[in-house]
Amino acid sequence: MTLAMLINGQASNQIPADDRGFQYGDGLFETALLAKGQVRFLDDHLRRLATGCSRLGIAAPDERTLRDEIAQVTKGSERGVLKIIVTRGSGGRGYRPGSAASNTRVVALHPLNHVSQGALRLRWCEIRLGRNARLAGIKHLNRLEHVLAQSEWSDGEADEGLMLDTEGELVCATAGNVFAVRDGALITPDLRFCGVQGVMRAQVLKAAARLGLPVTEEPLWPDDLQAASEIFITNAVRGIRSVAALDSLQWSETGVAERLAAALSLSDT
Amino acid sequence: MTLAMLINGQASNQIPADDRGFQYGDGLFETALLAKGQVRFLDDHLRRLATGCSRLGIAAPDERTLRDEIAQVTKGSERGVLKIIVTRGSGGRGYRPGSAASNTRVVALHPLNHVSQGALRLRWCEIRLGRNARLAGIKHLNRLEHVLAQSEWSDGEADEGLMLDTEGELVCATAGNVFAVRDGALITPDLRFCGVQGVMRAQVLKAAARLGLPVTEEPLWPDDLQAASEIFITNAVRGIRSVAALDSLQWSETGVAERLAAALSLSDT
Repeated sequence: MTLAMLINGQASNQIPADDRGFQYGDGLFETALLAKGQVRFLDDHLRRLATGCSRLGIAAPDERTLRDEIAQVTKGSERGVLKIIVTRGSGGRGYRPGSAASNTRVVALHPLNHVSQGALRLRWCEIRLGRNARLAGIKHLNRLEHVLAQSEWSDGEADEGLMLDTEGELVCATAGNVFAVRDGALITPDLRFCGVQGVMRAQVLKAAARLGLPVTEEPLWPDDLQAASEIFITNAVRGIRSVAALDSLQWSETGVAERLAAALSLSDT
Repeated sequence: MTLAMLINGQASNQIPADDRGFQYGDGLFETALLAKGQVRFLDDHLRRLATGCSRLGIAAPDERTLRDEIAQVTKGSERGVLKIIVTRGSGGRGYRPGSAASNTRVVALHPLNHVSQGALRLRWCEIRLGRNARLAGIKHLNRLEHVLAQSEWSDGEADEGLMLDTEGELVCATAGNVFAVRDGALITPDLRFCGVQGVMRAQVLKAAARLGLPVTEEPLWPDDLQAASEIFITNAVRGIRSVAALDSLQWSETGVAERLAAALSLSDT
């Protein structure tokens, strides 16, 4: 369901079938929370989108135009999920992009689905993430691995799944980044080979620094979670979510997650 | 440019922006040659498409419907490129597919671009292919790596690029499979981690068996090409193309490629 959608500035819900986003996943997206009529961390989302465009060689949309379109689709709404998609547009011959500096912008507001409260029950996903440093960090449209990951279980069985890369390193949740607390310090995967540099992840890293919490971004392996006193998942829309269980492992501590959420005023939104 | 397009059986060139093909690259495609009014190797293309649907858990389109739509878009045309896209359709919540067995079918005929004649000059692509056995072989819509590969050079510099995976194994050309001839035997990468099981590749493997040419599918590394007496690239639309040069390496033999092309009657189309 969509509350409002603009495609290249026009009210529409259709894109040309020759759009390279549809043909090859040749584009990027952002998903942000609208709360109290404001898009949370909008500057961060727009910055990551611009970084992604630069990495893929896609003409970045004009920021003022994009902000204006975001204001149009969110006008009069207090709460929802803002989704932005930018693709390389139509054209080119086969895989090869055309020389024209074109793109397609989709700016849409969706209702915020009910989100369960309480600490999350996690599972391990069977599908792995392929490693490719060239695509790591950005929120591109090639998301089959995440789609297949979320296909592995039904709602009742777990709240989220953790994903490993093909070498067995821990990367992320299917729709979020993962943090572990060990000896009072925060650790999160460094995402050098795959995964998305989440907007909430970046906010958590900055808030931790302000709070004087030691933080490291480093390679993490499944066994590292056994030594963790606390685990949480971050997502731009859902905020910071404590983890209660991962298969047979259990955690009851939520203090670091709560301090970070308070520092980021997440409950105010 | 498109000569004819059917979307779910209706003449159209627009798809809903919430289609999962556009949102996540959640789908598959086929590109086939129309020659003398017939789609070359159509059975093979439809079989690979069905295999891909099965691998991704997408409801495969009814084969009779698809064949009927192909007949409609190719009617009255002698020559062109047939492109079929099948996605998981709209719906689901975020990455997670909905439970409905829906899909989106796009069946389109495009003009056949002019293809240069003569042996190909190849280059090495800088971007690598990520390894993920779960997605290997099928022709899914997550093709950013190929798009970025073809962005690395302009038309005049080379005819095609060879791609390695992140571990340095040779996988494919940006739009085709690669074969080497060594001591009279054919060798082609086994594609166990990435790459597409090309329709022309499969035809070449079968034709080689009929001709009594030894064939192995095995891991290949860049150095293996130095020992090759002949190299060729296969692609469903362009057929079998001999390679003349790869950076400073040069080949003049084209005999095996020509025998295979003759066995497959490729020049008749």
